[in-house]
Amino acid sequence: MVDWTPPNREYDFLFNEVFSMTERLQKLGFEGFDEESIAMMIESWGNHAREVWLPINEVGDKEGLGFEGGKITMPDAFKDAYRKGVKEGWFGTSCKPEHGGMGAPLLFQSVPWSEYGTSTCMALSVFPALSAGVYEVITEHAEDDITDTYAPLLASGEWAGTMCLTEPHAGTDLGMIKTKAMPNEDGSYSITGTKIYITAGEHDMADNILHLVLAKVPGGPSGTKGISLFLVPKLLNSDWSGGRPSMNTGSLSDSINGVSCSGTEEKMGIHASPTCVMNFEDSIGWLVGPVHGGMPLMFQMMNRERLATGMMGLGLSEIAYQNALSWCKDRRQGRDLRGVRDPNEEADSILVHPDVRRMLLECKVNNEGCRALASWTGILLDEMNSEDKETADRAEALIALLTPIIKAHFTDIGCENVDTCMQVMGGAGYCSEYGVEQFYRDVRISKIWEGTNGIQALDLAGRKITQDFGKNLRHLLWPMTDFIEENRKNAEMAEFNKPLHQGVKGLQQLTLLMISSGMANPNFLASGATDYCRYFGNVLIGYMWARIASVCLEKKNDTFYEAKLASARFFFQRIYPETFGLAARIQSGPKPLMEYPTEMF
Amino acid sequence: MVDWTPPNREYDFLFNEVFSMTERLQKLGFEGFDEESIAMMIESWGNHAREVWLPINEVGDKEGLGFEGGKITMPDAFKDAYRKGVKEGWFGTSCKPEHGGMGAPLLFQSVPWSEYGTSTCMALSVFPALSAGVYEVITEHAEDDITDTYAPLLASGEWAGTMCLTEPHAGTDLGMIKTKAMPNEDGSYSITGTKIYITAGEHDMADNILHLVLAKVPGGPSGTKGISLFLVPKLLNSDWSGGRPSMNTGSLSDSINGVSCSGTEEKMGIHASPTCVMNFEDSIGWLVGPVHGGMPLMFQMMNRERLATGMMGLGLSEIAYQNALSWCKDRRQGRDLRGVRDPNEEADSILVHPDVRRMLLECKVNNEGCRALASWTGILLDEMNSEDKETADRAEALIALLTPIIKAHFTDIGCENVDTCMQVMGGAGYCSEYGVEQFYRDVRISKIWEGTNGIQALDLAGRKITQDFGKNLRHLLWPMTDFIEENRKNAEMAEFNKPLHQGVKGLQQLTLLMISSGMANPNFLASGATDYCRYFGNVLIGYMWARIASVCLEKKNDTFYEAKLASARFFFQRIYPETFGLAARIQSGPKPLMEYPTEMF
Repeated sequence: MVDWTPPNREYDFLFNEVFSMTERLQKLGFEGFDEESIAMMIESWGNHAREVWLPINEVGDKEGLGFEGGKITMPDAFKDAYRKGVKEGWFGTSCKPEHGGMGAPLLFQSVPWSEYGTSTCMALSVFPALSAGVYEVITEHAEDDITDTYAPLLASGEWAGTMCLTEPHAGTDLGMIKTKAMPNEDGSYSITGTKIYITAGEHDMADNILHLVLAKVPGGPSGTKGISLFLVPKLLNSDWSGGRPSMNTGSLSDSINGVSCSGTEEKMGIHASPTCVMNFEDSIGWLVGPVHGGMPLMFQMMNRERLATGMMGLGLSEIAYQNALSWCKDRRQGRDLRGVRDPNEEADSILVHPDVRRMLLECKVNNEGCRALASWTGILLDEMNSEDKETADRAEALIALLTPIIKAHFTDIGCENVDTCMQVMGGAGYCSEYGVEQFYRDVRISKIWEGTNGIQALDLAGRKITQDFGKNLRHLLWPMTDFIEENRKNAEMAEFNKPLHQGVKGLQQLTLLMISSGMANPNFLASGATDYCRYFGNVLIGYMWARIASVCLEKKNDTFYEAKLASARFFFQRIYPETFGLAARIQSGPKPLMEYPTEMF
Repeated sequence: MVDWTPPNREYDFLFNEVFSMTERLQKLGFEGFDEESIAMMIESWGNHAREVWLPINEVGDKEGLGFEGGKITMPDAFKDAYRKGVKEGWFGTSCKPEHGGMGAPLLFQSVPWSEYGTSTCMALSVFPALSAGVYEVITEHAEDDITDTYAPLLASGEWAGTMCLTEPHAGTDLGMIKTKAMPNEDGSYSITGTKIYITAGEHDMADNILHLVLAKVPGGPSGTKGISLFLVPKLLNSDWSGGRPSMNTGSLSDSINGVSCSGTEEKMGIHASPTCVMNFEDSIGWLVGPVHGGMPLMFQMMNRERLATGMMGLGLSEIAYQNALSWCKDRRQGRDLRGVRDPNEEADSILVHPDVRRMLLECKVNNEGCRALASWTGILLDEMNSEDKETADRAEALIALLTPIIKAHFTDIGCENVDTCMQVMGGAGYCSEYGVEQFYRDVRISKIWEGTNGIQALDLAGRKITQDFGKNLRHLLWPMTDFIEENRKNAEMAEFNKPLHQGVKGLQQLTLLMISSGMANPNFLASGATDYCRYFGNVLIGYMWARIASVCLEKKNDTFYEAKLASARFFFQRIYPETFGLAARIQSGPKPLMEYPTEMF
């Protein structure tokens, strides 16, 4: 029943009419990637996602995983789709040509690729997303022989990757992990420990799995500063007898390197995504990065996955919206309150009802706003690698700031949107036949994955806004206040610029309040963090809408641009006002939370 | 893994210390129901629910329904639990003693019974709730022989009931139904048509099922004014050969009276609740109420079920909260931001973290507030039957007003609370092992059932506030403004009374705005309805908290009352501020919705 059309026009508009992406990409040396070729990539990927990924999404939900003797079997349809992706090169678009990748901008992979992939098959999208993260970590931080051996296998997708952090007693608080890494004489390490909630920890989609594992080498400091990062393959080659990874290239044996999966979690959704308990028993692994210096590297991958997780909020919300809309277009109930609209029909289309329009527009406008912010962020990922130091610095500061907001805000409103799409369909939304209930179950993990949204908010409020004397925030506030100033005298812009101005002022005041009160009492920061993050998300998306409006006001005689202006209006009048309540909640401080008698919870 | 403790103390507090229920019940003639006996009923019901209902809830989710040859088979555990309920008389507490019922106040059945029942097994709770609704309709509106024949069977639970409204093309818009009722010579009717989404339409829990069916008798007006209500048994007795229902009392045959179930919906949750497609083919039924006058009667039952559905929001939220809390109590991650709390442990309890407390308190305080409003409403159900006309009038006006708010607001925040409970548990919340994900799936239907929450909001804004020249609203605003006035000089009450006063003023202004702008443009009312309903819910619950606070301020030296004051503070500082944004959204009017180019959705 489910259908989906890739919103290619949206990307064309954002990339070319709003953000001048091609120009910025050219400056970064992406010479083969001009407006046309990027549009073609997006279109081809949309076609692939629609033809290959979309049909298997429900299959994965219904069929789920096989698990026997420590082996996880994926649905055949998933293995086929994965192989097609490998064959057509869709999994390594951002990998370097020297590793067989396409060398395309991260912008493509992290934004349209992620959106379309999660829209059409969220469970499948995670496999290549994890591999891309492992690829990035090893190509930047591992010794050359590791990169030379494994990077091409990850870039093609023939092998897959994972990140192994959580242990039963240590999730958010990784400093407590117990997995041990003992150095061997040949330069390898023997890793022993148990990891839980390992996505794609075991499966039969790829020939081998490369685990990035956090473990402690004896003698290091306690807490997170004593954690090292290791690359641990599921399988070693049959004739491997020690030494560096470059020695490990023969045919793969069934000797599983002491890596075993002892169970998978039964979950509410993403039934075709294995969530594994992984046991490492004297598993051979190689250090990536410095001894005891593994956390920042893992966080590099984590941050990448956080952005990808944020995109799940958008991806699922978009496909839910498209299906809810198509249901509404067919459904006739009641009459237009202002008079019969279709006298020849027994009832009018439910699109005449204000509350139906409200629900649909909340989703549509949220999706458009998130897509704009995602695009604006996507190019910054590429600019982080700019040879121009100022550009790279600015991009790094902004990415540091934006990552927790995108992760938390996109997934929060993504879940809300899918909920709204279910609601607009009434009973049909709750029934499996129409597909939206799967999106509702699937998208829900995104608020938890890669650090719960509460953790994102604490990262923002407790770290990112104060980092480097507030440098991250300055890099955002400067262009925003410039924009507001530039548009101050434009009467047509007032309806967008004024609320944005209010919001930015509010954000500055709340930031000051959080920092100054937080100095005396860190619980002030922590108590307001979630609301602050949501407030911030609203202001950022408000900034996107004001920028979009300023572009569209120049191009009035086209419904596309008129609709964008209408979306901007809807945003400022119907979504943005939640900031009023958020501000009041932040200002109430920690007392209502901390003075509650704990024994009376 | 799931556990639950009935919150008996909460009801004791609300019934006896806040609302003087016993006094009011005595006035209504419920002489056998004093403080002690009601407390005992609540306690016994809590024990029954915990021992008999709670253990089968997960079984129902996993096992689901059997469906073969038009017959639905319930899990054995459900049939056992149902039979125990029949045996112990838990299903007819409000039914009249002359029908074998307990003659207890509706207060009991509609509030603690509903909460505990939905907490422990929402899928099961719906069977007796539907039967109670059918019982009420027939005892009030059917001819005596129908009541005499069927009321005792419904009161005991030996037979079950349903309501058959929706058809494939007619849900919200019932005026379009096609089911026909042809009069027979013996005074019965032959009913023919297809109904969908019929909860408990077919099952093997009870010996027989009595369907209340909406159908059209030829010659009536079009739309809802041509709809009549019929009682249609699933089975007729073996020797029945026409005539009134009183003739239909022999042993039940397998002749199914032309009533058949052709399918059940596969749903996201409540897997042990059959959602049936029901076909009536010349099924014998008897008119209930006047010809063409069926809608108001069905709405009487519907309103009853709306309140029951509202209680599902509370019930599921309560059990989710209890389980999330118990998980938090065991979980240690990170350290108190103000310094190590438990130096002998590797980490502090996560209850030290402000954001964890925020999440738990949102649920706890929402539950307490909803429970208070539910209790306040429950007694009004009994007062509707008062012999004192003024009392009955007032109760009727308030119930008319409160029903859509309780249905929509309790289920909206119930869903949000269960979501928050899942979030506080992180990955564990998403895994089936811990039970909360079932609550998340189950509770979601409550926003759709018995008229979506958007429909509730329209009922409130478009009908209930203007009905009888605003009579309903006056009956609410009078006691609220009196209360505010009485407490104006009490300094200790200021922190509760002031925001309540603000909210009530806001509500009056918004109501005026809605009505005056709605006169010129009904879309103004419809565009703001959902936000208005939520605003209204906040003010009502704020009124409950202020009343609770005024009681607790007199009783300071007890943690129970201190916690209630802390809950009231949390409510006004952390939940209530959402009204600011809601007001702004309502004021923005219909333009952002209605002027959006429809072809660009």
